Amino acid sequence: MKILLISLLKRGSFIKMISLDRKFYVQNLSKKDKIVKIHDEEKQHLEVLRPSLKDKFWATNGKGLDFLCKIIKMNKKFFEVEVLKVKENKKYPLYLHLFFGVTKRKKWEWLIEKATEMGVLEFTPLITKNNQQYAKGFYKEKKLERFKRKVVAAMKQSRRSFLPKINKPVKFSTLQNHDTKIKNSFVLSFDGIKWKKKDVEKSKKLNLIVGPEGGFTEKEVKILEDKDAKLRNIGIYTLKTETAALKAVSLLTYFKEDF
Amino acid sequence: MKILLISLLKRGSFIKMISLDRKFYVQNLSKKDKIVKIHDEEKQHLEVLRPSLKDKFWATNGKGLDFLCKIIKMNKKFFEVEVLKVKENKKYPLYLHLFFGVTKRKKWEWLIEKATEMGVLEFTPLITKNNQQYAKGFYKEKKLERFKRKVVAAMKQSRRSFLPKINKPVKFSTLQNHDTKIKNSFVLSFDGIKWKKKDVEKSKKLNLIVGPEGGFTEKEVKILEDKDAKLRNIGIYTLKTETAALKAVSLLTYFKEDF
Repeated sequence: MKILLISLLKRGSFIKMISLDRKFYVQNLSKKDKIVKIHDEEKQHLEVLRPSLKDKFWATNGKGLDFLCKIIKMNKKFFEVEVLKVKENKKYPLYLHLFFGVTKRKKWEWLIEKATEMGVLEFTPLITKNNQQYAKGFYKEKKLERFKRKVVAAMKQSRRSFLPKINKPVKFSTLQNHDTKIKNSFVLSFDGIKWKKKDVEKSKKLNLIVGPEGGFTEKEVKILEDKDAKLRNIGIYTLKTETAALKAVSLLTYFKEDF
Repeated sequence: MKILLISLLKRGSFIKMISLDRKFYVQNLSKKDKIVKIHDEEKQHLEVLRPSLKDKFWATNGKGLDFLCKIIKMNKKFFEVEVLKVKENKKYPLYLHLFFGVTKRKKWEWLIEKATEMGVLEFTPLITKNNQQYAKGFYKEKKLERFKRKVVAAMKQSRRSFLPKINKPVKFSTLQNHDTKIKNSFVLSFDGIKWKKKDVEKSKKLNLIVGPEGGFTEKEVKILEDKDAKLRNIGIYTLKTETAALKAVSLLTYFKEDF
């Protein structure tokens, strides 16, 4: 088979599909586009697969649309592609926004990668009493760019078509003024009750709030409870905060048809 | 408060509890022990917290027993402790054994760490058609020691009292001869149906089998199915194998009271 493929390619009589199990990310693709130029990073990603003229591949714009593209021009600066087909993906049954008490950068990167694979659509680093010392790094523009790259890679890996949003850090004192946001929230806490499927049955959008190592302070928990956040536990053992967050995401997505 | 504590310690009139939120691992502790010597690695872990004579701490033997210990002798070679109290922990409602198609060592270490936090009790690296090239490293005695250390750390971190077992790699051709093991197994597969709580309601022990990157071959899946393994999916998206395994573990432990 391999030999046949190579010989067909050599004769140029065979238009190959680049990597069937990969999806590329081309941010500026929109529904009306017929011809598009691909530059920079995503051009590099394509080049790794050594494409030829007329090769096809799937790309997503990260906003729910997938595009079947055919390469019609290749030069040092860009690839030009023709859009052959557009596919519109259904929105997820749940818009999940994860607030996380960040500590070390590596843990955060690990979490946003895994949670993107699992279907979370928005991330916000949370600065509370117990993790203030870690806040600094998360405000830097360079770091945000790095986080975004992680999330793009995870979206592509899981062949999703919605790129999660990554926000700048939010202080607890700011979050606590957003009454509707808190009301629509689940907070991980040993004092909470067990998750139930019906927790999310009627929700289309919700926030999952996970405290930092060392947890929320009693005062912080009281503020969240007073504003009607719902407390949930995930058992009696002390999971690391990022493990706990991922278990909660696993359950929430499972409850909603494993999107 | 801190000043008071220090001054009390200085006067030696105050017996402190070393790190209330930590549990140590002392493998050779047994129910009958009254006085025990602690050497090597675990002695080092204790030393980090700068204990004094008469300080107390909790230790587990990794076999379900916790011990309240008091330090009664300290020298360069060992600490001697008196056991003040023994606590017996209930067995988990589910004995979960994870077979995983290993590829890179880092992914495996990540997975055994997280899955230990979540309550898995046995791990076996699985060698299948699609991951044979990675098998070598997993057979080395040194690596096994390293994996064990990861699992000990994760057990302590999550304050559990049962140390998971880590096995040497098993070839698919060996696993396929264990009919009862396969019959009692769930296999992650896109062809499977959705997980249900009743999948595990009657089980006290079960195996979760997760293929390598690239998946099981059709032939391998057929063998598992023919021997009555149950196929389950976790949605339509392509999660990394280690993410998929962790989501399955999250669900299984959730179904069984979040042990």
